[in-house]
Amino acid sequence: MTTPIGSLAPTHWYNLAADFPEPVPPPLHPGTREPLRPEDLEHLFPRELINQELSTERFIEIPQAVREVYAKWRPSPLIRADRLERALGTRGRIFYKYEGVSPAGSHKPNTAVAQAWYNAQEGTTRLTTETGAGQWGASLALACSLFGMSCEVWQVRSSYESKPYRRYQMEVYGSTCHSSPSDLTRAGRDVLARDPQTTGSLGMAISEAVEVAAASDDVHYALGSVLNHVMLHQTVIGLEAVAQLRQAGVDQPDVVFGCAGGGSNLAGLSFPFIGRNLTEGASSRVVACEPAACPTITQGEYRYDVGDVAGTTPMMKMYTLGADFVPPAIHAGGLRYHGMAPMVSHAVHLGLMDGVAVSQEDAFAAGLLFARSEGIVPAPESTHAVAAAVEYAREARQGEVILIGLSGNGVLDLPAYEAYL
Amino acid sequence: MTTPIGSLAPTHWYNLAADFPEPVPPPLHPGTREPLRPEDLEHLFPRELINQELSTERFIEIPQAVREVYAKWRPSPLIRADRLERALGTRGRIFYKYEGVSPAGSHKPNTAVAQAWYNAQEGTTRLTTETGAGQWGASLALACSLFGMSCEVWQVRSSYESKPYRRYQMEVYGSTCHSSPSDLTRAGRDVLARDPQTTGSLGMAISEAVEVAAASDDVHYALGSVLNHVMLHQTVIGLEAVAQLRQAGVDQPDVVFGCAGGGSNLAGLSFPFIGRNLTEGASSRVVACEPAACPTITQGEYRYDVGDVAGTTPMMKMYTLGADFVPPAIHAGGLRYHGMAPMVSHAVHLGLMDGVAVSQEDAFAAGLLFARSEGIVPAPESTHAVAAAVEYAREARQGEVILIGLSGNGVLDLPAYEAYL
Repeated sequence: MTTPIGSLAPTHWYNLAADFPEPVPPPLHPGTREPLRPEDLEHLFPRELINQELSTERFIEIPQAVREVYAKWRPSPLIRADRLERALGTRGRIFYKYEGVSPAGSHKPNTAVAQAWYNAQEGTTRLTTETGAGQWGASLALACSLFGMSCEVWQVRSSYESKPYRRYQMEVYGSTCHSSPSDLTRAGRDVLARDPQTTGSLGMAISEAVEVAAASDDVHYALGSVLNHVMLHQTVIGLEAVAQLRQAGVDQPDVVFGCAGGGSNLAGLSFPFIGRNLTEGASSRVVACEPAACPTITQGEYRYDVGDVAGTTPMMKMYTLGADFVPPAIHAGGLRYHGMAPMVSHAVHLGLMDGVAVSQEDAFAAGLLFARSEGIVPAPESTHAVAAAVEYAREARQGEVILIGLSGNGVLDLPAYEAYL
Repeated sequence: MTTPIGSLAPTHWYNLAADFPEPVPPPLHPGTREPLRPEDLEHLFPRELINQELSTERFIEIPQAVREVYAKWRPSPLIRADRLERALGTRGRIFYKYEGVSPAGSHKPNTAVAQAWYNAQEGTTRLTTETGAGQWGASLALACSLFGMSCEVWQVRSSYESKPYRRYQMEVYGSTCHSSPSDLTRAGRDVLARDPQTTGSLGMAISEAVEVAAASDDVHYALGSVLNHVMLHQTVIGLEAVAQLRQAGVDQPDVVFGCAGGGSNLAGLSFPFIGRNLTEGASSRVVACEPAACPTITQGEYRYDVGDVAGTTPMMKMYTLGADFVPPAIHAGGLRYHGMAPMVSHAVHLGLMDGVAVSQEDAFAAGLLFARSEGIVPAPESTHAVAAAVEYAREARQGEVILIGLSGNGVLDLPAYEAYL
C-alpha cells in the first residue's frame, strides 16, 4: 500500500529511489572504487543531506522553515497554454509548470533553500559552489542570505562574461562570484596552464568549488544538480503539478517534456509522475530534452564517471560524454554538463524515460513562438522542452495532454534572443 | 447601497470617479481650454477607452479575453513579509502585493493588455507609445503580440542607453524601440536642436509617440499611466488585495504605501481601499511615495498643465513640476514624470491620500534589505514604497497592518544595484 502522490502544498519530498524496480547503482570512492561511505562526504555536506543522498525512504519531510520560504512563491503556477495551442492548431491540450516566478527566476531555489537551511542548522558559515548559466549561483546566494550565510561562486567563464547580471544578483544577496577557471585554486590554475583560452565548463568550476570547501572546516560545498538529494528537493514541482492537473480535471498527462542539463528540473517535474507510473498504474511518458550540442543521454555512454574535471568527486554511474568534454558555448548555459544525474540516468536506462536532442536554432524558434503567444519569455534551457513539446503537439491526438516544464524565465538571457533575432 | 469591493478574480474594474466626494476636474483642450469632448480624443484612442476615460460608472466589466490573459499570472501574490518584519523587529504586520510575477515583470501589463485588446477590437494595427524605465514599452509590446498588433516605442534616452535589455524584450515581442528624443518626429528634432545632450524625459517621448499616432488613421497611441482609464485597469491589484487580506484575516490595512511616478501602480493598489474608506466606513491611510529628485506631489503645484513637452496633450489638473521639468537621470526611470495622474492628484487634493519624498540612497538601502530578507529584488521604483514602509514599520503599533505595493522586480535593474553597492 502506498501513499498517493500529489499535493498543492507538499509537506514531504518524494524519493523515487523507493520505487525504482532496481536500486540506483551506488556512488564509488574515486580512489578505492568502493561504494562511498557517508563519512566520505562529511567534509563537503551536512549530515542530513548525506542521509538524503543515500536514502530509499519514499517521503522525506520538508522542514517547516523551508516550507515557509517555499510559500513565498509556491505553488508555482500551472498554466494552460491555450494561446500556444491556438497558434499551433493542435488537437492536444498543453499545460506548463512555470518555475520562473521564484525570486531567482528559475527552479533552482527549491534545492538551494533546503541545502542552505541544513547547512545553517549544522553550523556552516559559508558555502562554495559552481554555476553554469548563473541561475544556480544566484539561487544559492539568495538562499544563503535568508539564513545568514555567505556564498562563494565559481561561474563558468563563457557565462561569467556574457551574463554579468547574474553576478550582480549574487552580489545583491551578499555573495561573491569568480570567473572559472580562476587562479584561486590549484584545479583552476592547472586548467589555465593547459588552455588559457578555455571557455570553462561546469566540470572545471565544480573542481574549484570542491577544492576550496574541502580545505576549510566551516565551509561546505553545495551542488545545484546531479546528486540524489537535489533531485529529491525539486520534486515539489511535480508533486504540485499532479495536484494542479487534477484540479484542472486531468488525472494524468500523456507526455511530460522537461529540459535536461544536470537533470534536476526534469527530475523534479517528472519523478512524481514516474512514481505514479510505477505504483499507481498511471502511464505518463517522460521525455528528457537536451541540447544537440551536449547530447549526454542520446549520445553519451552509461558508465561510471567522475563529476568534475579534476576527478575529485565520487564516481557516479551515469550517461556521460566524459568528464573532460567541453561543450560549445551555447546560450543554454545550464545544459552544458558532460554527465546526467545518476537517478535520471537510471530512469533512462530502465526505460522509464526517453531522451531527445534539440538544436539551438529549433529551441530559440520555439522560445520566440512561446513568448509571442503565451507572453512569457522562456529561459534558453526551457526552450528545449518547449521545442520538443511543440513538435509533438503538431501531431497530437484529440485531447491528449502535454505537460511542459518551464524551468525559468529568460529575462537575463534577452541578449541571447537578440542574437538569435 | 453599494456593492462591496474586493475579489480574487475581479470581473469588473473599480472606478473611484464614482465615489469621489467632488468630481475630478475635467481635461481641457490645449487650444481652446474648453472641457475636452470625446471626439477630440478619437484620433488617438479607441471609443471604449474614451468612454472609460470620462466614465463615472462605479464598476466597469473586464472583457472576457482580457480576463483570460490576466489569469495567466493573476491574482498576483500577496505575501506576508515575515522575514522583513523580523529583520526590522517591528511590532507591525507587513504584507506586500507583488506585481513582478507578470511576464513583463511589473504591473504595467494590467492596462497594456486591456488597451491592446480594445484597440484590436476596433481595427487598429499599430500602437505608438513612450516608455521611461522600459517597463511600459515592454508591456505594451507583449500585449500587442498577444492580439496580433505591432508597437513602436520611444524610450527616454537615459533609460534607452542604460537598459538595453528592455529594448531586447520589446523586440522579442516583435516591436520596435527608438531612443527619445529621436530625429523621427518634429517634436524630437526640436528638442535635439535646442539641447543635443538631453537625457530625455517622458514628456518628450510622449510628444513623439502622439505625433506619429496622430498622423495615421490605423495607428493609435497608448499611455501607460496618468489617464483615468489606466488607473481603472490597474484596480485589479487593489481589488485582489482586499480579498487576499481578508483571506489572511485582515479586514483592512492601517496604511498602504505605493510608489508614485505617473500614479498608476499607486492608484491600482490604493483606489479600492480609498473607495472602501468613502463607502464602507473603512479607514486605511494611503501614502504616495515619490523620489526626492522628482517630487511632484510634495513640491509641485496643483494646477492645469499639459502632459508633454510639445504641449500636444490635453491639459489636465494635476500636481506638476511643469511640463519642461527634466528630472535627473535617477535609476527609478518609471518615476521620472513631471506630473501626477489627475485622479491621484484629486485624491491628494481632497486629503484622501498623503505624499512623501524618498531619497535614492534610502530607497536602495531599503531595496537591499528587502532583497536579503524576503528574497525578491524590488524594482527601483518599488523601493521607494519599501523605504517609506520600513521607516513607518520601525515605529508601528502592535499588530498594525502595513501594505506595500511592490510594482515590479528589479532583475533588469541589477546594474543600478551594482552601482549602489
